[in-house]
Amino acid sequence: MSPQKIPAIVIGRLPLYLRVLTQIDSTKVKVTSSQEMGEYLGISSAQIRKDLLHFGEFGKQGTGYNVRFLKSQLMKILQVDREWNIALVGAGGLGTAIVKYAGFQGRGFQIALVFDNDPSKIGQTLENLTILSSNNIKQEIELMKLKIAMVAVPAKYAQEVTNQLIEAGIRSILNYAPTNLSVPPEVRIVHIDPVIGLQHMTYYL
Amino acid sequence: MSPQKIPAIVIGRLPLYLRVLTQIDSTKVKVTSSQEMGEYLGISSAQIRKDLLHFGEFGKQGTGYNVRFLKSQLMKILQVDREWNIALVGAGGLGTAIVKYAGFQGRGFQIALVFDNDPSKIGQTLENLTILSSNNIKQEIELMKLKIAMVAVPAKYAQEVTNQLIEAGIRSILNYAPTNLSVPPEVRIVHIDPVIGLQHMTYYL
Repeated sequence: MSPQKIPAIVIGRLPLYLRVLTQIDSTKVKVTSSQEMGEYLGISSAQIRKDLLHFGEFGKQGTGYNVRFLKSQLMKILQVDREWNIALVGAGGLGTAIVKYAGFQGRGFQIALVFDNDPSKIGQTLENLTILSSNNIKQEIELMKLKIAMVAVPAKYAQEVTNQLIEAGIRSILNYAPTNLSVPPEVRIVHIDPVIGLQHMTYYL
Repeated sequence: MSPQKIPAIVIGRLPLYLRVLTQIDSTKVKVTSSQEMGEYLGISSAQIRKDLLHFGEFGKQGTGYNVRFLKSQLMKILQVDREWNIALVGAGGLGTAIVKYAGFQGRGFQIALVFDNDPSKIGQTLENLTILSSNNIKQEIELMKLKIAMVAVPAKYAQEVTNQLIEAGIRSILNYAPTNLSVPPEVRIVHIDPVIGLQHMTYYL
C-alpha cells in the first residue's frame, strides 16, 4: 500500500506502539503480543494487529512479535531510524522546558536551532545552543535545510512565526501555542494542547 | 445513549470541536458548518456531523450550527461549564511552564495545588501558589477533594508520584513524563508526549 493510502489515524498509532515496544525492550523481554501491547495502551489487540498488517507480517499467529524486530521496523516506517534536527522558536519558560526535555533522546529528534525575538535572550546559551534572533529564521533554517519546527511563542505571535517557518522550508510543525494555526495543505501540524486531554477526561468524571 | 457507550475516540474529538468553535466565536461569526469546522481540523464534515449526532440535533440540515449554542452544549457535555481545580506535581522547568501556560484560561481548569520534593523550592511562590511538599500530596488533595492532577516530574519518579495521587483520590491524570504509567481501570490517563506527534509527521517527510 502506498504511504499516502494508509489512514492517518493508523499512522498516528504507530508512535504509541513504538513507545510501548521501547518500554518492553528496556525490561529485556524479547517477545510480546498484540494483547500485551493493547493492555499498556488501552487499544484492542485486534486493532493493533490490523494496524500492523498494513505494513506486512511482523509475527506468526500464536507466537507473538519479536520486540526488537518490530521496534526497528516501526522506526524505519516512521523514519526515526535517523536523527532529525529541529528548529525551536521561543526561548521563554516553555521553550526552555522543551530544550531540557529528556523525552527526545534516542527517539529520532534533537533541537538544533533556537530562536527568540527578545534582545536580552539573543546570544545567550541554552543547553549548548546559542539563542538566535527570530529575524534570521529564514536564513538559518534554509542553511541547515531543516524540515521540522516547534512553535513555543505566545498565541498572538504564533501565526506570524508559522508563516516565517513555512517560507523557510519547514514542512512539519509541532505547535505549543494555545491556538489553531492556518497552514497550506503541504504542511503538517500537530498541536500540543494539554486542555484537549483534560477535557476528554472530565467527560468521564 | 449512556455516557459510557459513546466511543472514546468520539469523546476525544469533542474538545477539538470546542476549540474550533471558541476560535470562530472570537471572530464574532455566529453560524458555522461541519464543512468549515472540518477545514480547520482536517476532519471530514461527515465525521463531525456523525460525532455530534451522538448527543442530539444541534443544527438543521443546510442552515449550519449556531456557534455559541453548540459551544455551550459541548462545554456541558464535557463538563467544562465549570472550573476544575487541578493538582500539579513538579515545580521544575516544565512545571513552571505549565503553571504559566495561558491555555488553561476560560477552558475549565485552574491549577490549585503545586507540589515538589526539592526543599529549596518548598514554600516558594509560583504565580500566587505556594509550592507544597510532595510528602503532603495525600492530605492536601483529600482536603480539596481534587480529582485531576498533572505529573511533571522526571520519568524515574513518575510512577511513584502517580501511585500517591491515586491513593489521594485522583481519577484523571495528565502525564508529562516521557514514560508509560500503570494505573488501575478506574483512573484515566492522557500522555502529553511531543515525540508522538513528531514521529507521526516524519512518516510523511
